[in-house]
Amino acid sequence: MISCREEVTQMILAARVSKGISWSEVAAAVNLSKEWTTAACLGQMTFDREQAAIVGRLFDLSDEAIAWLQIAPSKGSLPTAVPTDPLIYRWYEIVSVYGSTIKELIHEEFGDGIMSAIDFSLDIRREEDPKGDRVQVLMSGKFLPYKRY
Amino acid sequence: MISCREEVTQMILAARVSKGISWSEVAAAVNLSKEWTTAACLGQMTFDREQAAIVGRLFDLSDEAIAWLQIAPSKGSLPTAVPTDPLIYRWYEIVSVYGSTIKELIHEEFGDGIMSAIDFSLDIRREEDPKGDRVQVLMSGKFLPYKRY
Amino acid sequence: MISCREEVTQMILAARVSKGISWSEVAAAVNLSKEWTTAACLGQMTFDREQAAIVGRLFDLSDEAIAWLQIAPSKGSLPTAVPTDPLIYRWYEIVSVYGSTIKELIHEEFGDGIMSAIDFSLDIRREEDPKGDRVQVLMSGKFLPYKRY
Amino acid sequence: MISCREEVTQMILAARVSKGISWSEVAAAVNLSKEWTTAACLGQMTFDREQAAIVGRLFDLSDEAIAWLQIAPSKGSLPTAVPTDPLIYRWYEIVSVYGSTIKELIHEEFGDGIMSAIDFSLDIRREEDPKGDRVQVLMSGKFLPYKRY
Amino acid sequence: MISCREEVTQMILAARVSKGISWSEVAAAVNLSKEWTTAACLGQMTFDREQAAIVGRLFDLSDEAIAWLQIAPSKGSLPTAVPTDPLIYRWYEIVSVYGSTIKELIHEEFGDGIMSAIDFSLDIRREEDPKGDRVQVLMSGKFLPYKRY
Amino acid sequence: MISCREEVTQMILAARVSKGISWSEVAAAVNLSKEWTTAACLGQMTFDREQAAIVGRLFDLSDEAIAWLQIAPSKGSLPTAVPTDPLIYRWYEIVSVYGSTIKELIHEEFGDGIMSAIDFSLDIRREEDPKGDRVQVLMSGKFLPYKRY
Amino acid sequence: MISCREEVTQMILAARVSKGISWSEVAAAVNLSKEWTTAACLGQMTFDREQAAIVGRLFDLSDEAIAWLQIAPSKGSLPTAVPTDPLIYRWYEIVSVYGSTIKELIHEEFGDGIMSAIDFSLDIRREEDPKGDRVQVLMSGKFLPYKRY
Amino acid sequence: MISCREEVTQMILAARVSKGISWSEVAAAVNLSKEWTTAACLGQMTFDREQAAIVGRLFDLSDEAIAWLQIAPSKGSLPTAVPTDPLIYRWYEIVSVYGSTIKELIHEEFGDGIMSAIDFSLDIRREEDPKGDRVQVLMSGKFLPYKRY
Amino acid sequence: MISCREEVTQMILAARVSKGISWSEVAAAVNLSKEWTTAACLGQMTFDREQAAIVGRLFDLSDEAIAWLQIAPSKGSLPTAVPTDPLIYRWYEIVSVYGSTIKELIHEEFGDGIMSAIDFSLDIRREEDPKGDRVQVLMSGKFLPYKRY
Amino acid sequence: MISCREEVTQMILAARVSKGISWSEVAAAVNLSKEWTTAACLGQMTFDREQAAIVGRLFDLSDEAIAWLQIAPSKGSLPTAVPTDPLIYRWYEIVSVYGSTIKELIHEEFGDGIMSAIDFSLDIRREEDPKGDRVQVLMSGKFLPYKRY
Repeated sequence: MISCREEVTQMILAARVSKGISWSEVAAAVNLSKEWTTAACLGQMTFDREQAAIVGRLFDLSDEAIAWLQIAPSKGSLPTAVPTDPLIYRWYEIVSVYGSTIKELIHEEFGDGIMSAIDFSLDIRREEDPKGDRVQVLMSGKFLPYKRY
Repeated sequence: MISCREEVTQMILAARVSKGISWSEVAAAVNLSKEWTTAACLGQMTFDREQAAIVGRLFDLSDEAIAWLQIAPSKGSLPTAVPTDPLIYRWYEIVSVYGSTIKELIHEEFGDGIMSAIDFSLDIRREEDPKGDRVQVLMSGKFLPYKRY
Repeated sequence: MISCREEVTQMILAARVSKGISWSEVAAAVNLSKEWTTAACLGQMTFDREQAAIVGRLFDLSDEAIAWLQIAPSKGSLPTAVPTDPLIYRWYEIVSVYGSTIKELIHEEFGDGIMSAIDFSLDIRREEDPKGDRVQVLMSGKFLPYKRY
Repeated sequence: MISCREEVTQMILAARVSKGISWSEVAAAVNLSKEWTTAACLGQMTFDREQAAIVGRLFDLSDEAIAWLQIAPSKGSLPTAVPTDPLIYRWYEIVSVYGSTIKELIHEEFGDGIMSAIDFSLDIRREEDPKGDRVQVLMSGKFLPYKRY
Repeated sequence: MISCREEVTQMILAARVSKGISWSEVAAAVNLSKEWTTAACLGQMTFDREQAAIVGRLFDLSDEAIAWLQIAPSKGSLPTAVPTDPLIYRWYEIVSVYGSTIKELIHEEFGDGIMSAIDFSLDIRREEDPKGDRVQVLMSGKFLPYKRY
Repeated sequence: MISCREEVTQMILAARVSKGISWSEVAAAVNLSKEWTTAACLGQMTFDREQAAIVGRLFDLSDEAIAWLQIAPSKGSLPTAVPTDPLIYRWYEIVSVYGSTIKELIHEEFGDGIMSAIDFSLDIRREEDPKGDRVQVLMSGKFLPYKRY
Repeated sequence: MISCREEVTQMILAARVSKGISWSEVAAAVNLSKEWTTAACLGQMTFDREQAAIVGRLFDLSDEAIAWLQIAPSKGSLPTAVPTDPLIYRWYEIVSVYGSTIKELIHEEFGDGIMSAIDFSLDIRREEDPKGDRVQVLMSGKFLPYKRY
Repeated sequence: MISCREEVTQMILAARVSKGISWSEVAAAVNLSKEWTTAACLGQMTFDREQAAIVGRLFDLSDEAIAWLQIAPSKGSLPTAVPTDPLIYRWYEIVSVYGSTIKELIHEEFGDGIMSAIDFSLDIRREEDPKGDRVQVLMSGKFLPYKRY
Repeated sequence: MISCREEVTQMILAARVSKGISWSEVAAAVNLSKEWTTAACLGQMTFDREQAAIVGRLFDLSDEAIAWLQIAPSKGSLPTAVPTDPLIYRWYEIVSVYGSTIKELIHEEFGDGIMSAIDFSLDIRREEDPKGDRVQVLMSGKFLPYKRY
Repeated sequence: MISCREEVTQMILAARVSKGISWSEVAAAVNLSKEWTTAACLGQMTFDREQAAIVGRLFDLSDEAIAWLQIAPSKGSLPTAVPTDPLIYRWYEIVSVYGSTIKELIHEEFGDGIMSAIDFSLDIRREEDPKGDRVQVLMSGKFLPYKRY
């Protein structure tokens, strides 16, 4: 019996190592971006029935595990409030160093409100550079204004 | 006597409200991006002598305050480990929800290493959309591989 | 010189005590709900120019303070992550006890997504009851679905 | 042997996924609101003997598990002080942003005291809206005054 | 200008030291228990107009300070989540060591619910004992049952 | 093999649910108060050989488990520094709201020192009241003065 | 006006630096141990009237400050839960490394109970040693048994 | 397979309960102080080959467990930063209340530096006293001065 | 099935104890420094295929475990934010005591930027000294300047 | 009146900015290493009388401030347990990533014990490198073995 979504994430991670499947291949199989697909495999998004079946076949998951893939998961992929992994910490540092700047500039351009993290997309790609390749990240989030009532 | 850089940041914020200067105008005056310039004004980056003088004139700062603008500041613009402001929290949430995804995809593309938060740039702009305008963010950070020795 | 929005909140709270103004009166003066108006006075929402002027007159604020009322503030009205005030703690407890229930029921009705805290309104009123009057709270937040991309 | 109530919650969650039962169906079976029933299934409320038997049949629970459903549980459904799940976080943010406002307005209307989180009910429903459906939440809690003695 | 209730508490504490007034004398003056009166002086309860005037005379408070005494305060008298003062820590330790016991015994006697901390009184007195006097504490809080709805 | 006292507590809790034994019955069997006995069963006090044997018979414990009941346990029954269970939280809130009051009044009556949490007893009972029954708690702790040396 | 005991501690520390008084001299003047006297000066113990007057003369304190010395202070001399000063941290480390050992050995010798930190004395002295002098610390605390009731 | 030192500590604690061995007997067997020996059994010190063999025989440990006894362990015997067990907490409280005093007195006697927690010994014994026996603790740690370079 | 990298680290640690292999021998086998090799075995660096095979043979790991050695791990080897082990704490203390000094001196020499922890090497060796041998540590990290854009 | 050492540190930092003195110049003036001297100026080490006088002249400090420079300070230069400044965080990350490695290698070479952070020196210098200059750090700390007693 599977008692939580995290167990399915562990199964996917273990199957991925032993089968040598890449996230891009999973994304191609379900016909979605690699960012959304990986997040969904890692328990941050919800697959529909058909996508869950495809993912289940790729990773040899049981029907019960495939059912869990279609349940809205309890989200949040970091084990601690301040991440310890250096790669993820760098992102946290960007929020720490640039957080007040981002706030000032979005308010200056849009007024009081936020950039949605739900109506949101993420695109990560390689930017070739002779001085050393770069990670290029494009984010797009709908601006949501605070309303007066 | 000014005893820390945060006091200068407070002076700039107060002067900005009473004078009605926009961050874009400051950026234009020092001829740098609005992202870097705002971060520098908010105590996250270091101005050189000439830039500090320009910023000082814009905000009517004392010579002592202008000297502080040229000192590498103690960085980190968030008062708590988990930010409480909704706009900044959404960015923290993106790191929380997508953190493991970002890690997997950068490692899949580049191998073991990180995206630099130092050799890094940030560009925030408006993306017009009939269903509601969006905040578009472009990040570029050099990939730094862990070396074996 | 006023160096942050919190100082203006302190001025409003102090003026309110010494002048004996009620929040409902402030709301009537700016012609908005008492919930939004109080939140704005307490540094959680942004007044426009006209509203700020009215609030400024009510509380005898300086022009500088009135300027601060029109700046999108750094939000979050609780001094600690877990609130210590018994009235506010009860709300935290509701989130603690009913959090997983709310999550299950919203997902059951709407699918994966969230209830917006930005496109959101709050209405607090007295519900008369012979066994003791009750606090009735009506919340309304737009459902925002996670999109697949 | 079942050693704590959380294990029964896990059993219910797992059975719900594999059997495809909705919370509304459980509520209908025990003839109570979906909010209270879901909270009870998730280990936040206590079923009486008859209700526990019904829930046990729906989810194929053992007699021992059914006995645990009738024990007042150790409450609190969040794994961390600040919730990481975006849906639940939005509720925490509402308490953070509106906490001082709620406090001011309840005191203004009722005097010193609290809104009970025990003599309390919660009702979550869909509010149709052409600009996007909304989550409507109605809370009702008895006002409890601090007494002087 | 007084900007928060804590300042009035500081004034009362300072005046009490320099004037040598005991809490029992304050309680006698306002004709309430010493427990409630001390809590109110320390910013945890709200005085009515007449009581505030008496307290104000005893401690030579300004009219503004007396106005603050009649505002429902932001409660919680401990500076840290786990108290460091040995006397207060012993109470925290009692909750820590006996917490699960208290929970079991109240549920065994009353069913699911809580002992109110609002409809609550506290009485502290000396219990003479030849082996060393004891502190005797009598608490009385209304039992509030969780209701099913 | 039993590796810690917590396992024995789990065994007792599980046996209590399946056997339907009340804490008062356990207390009667060992001829001590229900408060001390429950605390001892929950791993906060130490039984002597004879008492441990009685408790072991009631709950069908192994000899090894009975041996553990006679070992001074590692105390503290709360899983988090600030308790999340509403019943236990109310006690924490009493310490938070009344902490400084308790400190002032004990010092006023006894001088500098503490109320012992070791040479201490606790008595919880029902106080009948037409407006709703109340939980009455009587605590008695020896006053221990700080000595000068 | 002095609003809390910490201010008096700051006055004593400042006066000690500018006057060059040693703690041993203060102890000799009040005719108590240097350990208790220093703790009292630092806001952890309470002086009686005569001792407070002596300390006040030594450090040129005002009458108001001398009054504060006779009030039981809010104790706890560390600014953070885990001390950052290396000298004090070593003591925390001793508790961390030897804590379970101390617990086992006291229980083995005395049974269930504690070593009092109130009926307690501390003596710090130099132990000459050719390989480098040592700090010798002698503690003595009354054993307080948990009683059964 | 044993995967960490803590498992060996659990084995020793369990064997000690079921075999009824005292720490003093273990210390006598390895011919060292009871303080060091207990600390080593509890995973805070490292046995040499011969001592590990003796301890292994006393507690019926496997060869693998005996090998782990000879590995320098990851130290720190407290599960939380602020200990919850009342006996250990009293030691933490002594550091909290007397920390600044200890710092002042060691610096007054020795200058800037620390008392070593490594070149350190601990001796716990019973001090008979007609008013109730006392726990006497003697610590000795080498003074290590900060050097200038 | 192995579900995370930590399990492989546990296998390596257990095999190292039972086989008596030193880290230097592992380093020699893979022909890299002992610092990098140990970090990689402990789940902080990534082996390539050939190195993983060698490590697998040394510690008798399964093919699945060897596959995990080639996956970029989730890094961070400390179980708590402030380390409790005395050896590791000393390093944390060095960062605490010397952190602001290191920051000042690197900025004085290099300007605003950081010392890379990725393009970084570490070398630990014995420095013989008649007064007691010393641990000598040589670190080398590329200086990365913050760029203006 | 100066009430704590931190105020003197603020004075030094402010004077350094307005006078444009480098840390190396201060070190040369007191004839000690730039690492120790900077640490002492920043309140982590203690100057003797002569050195304090020199530092006082360089930074125009009052006699009272110079007296504070000769008092062993309360150490620890980081405002939060996990540093937020990127430069200092990289050092924390090194401890996090390499902590278990450092522990293993020091124990392998020296046995159970620690590297002293007191009998310790630090040397930071520029290492020229055509691919970008590097920060070279040499640490030397005496090995202190745990003794058996």
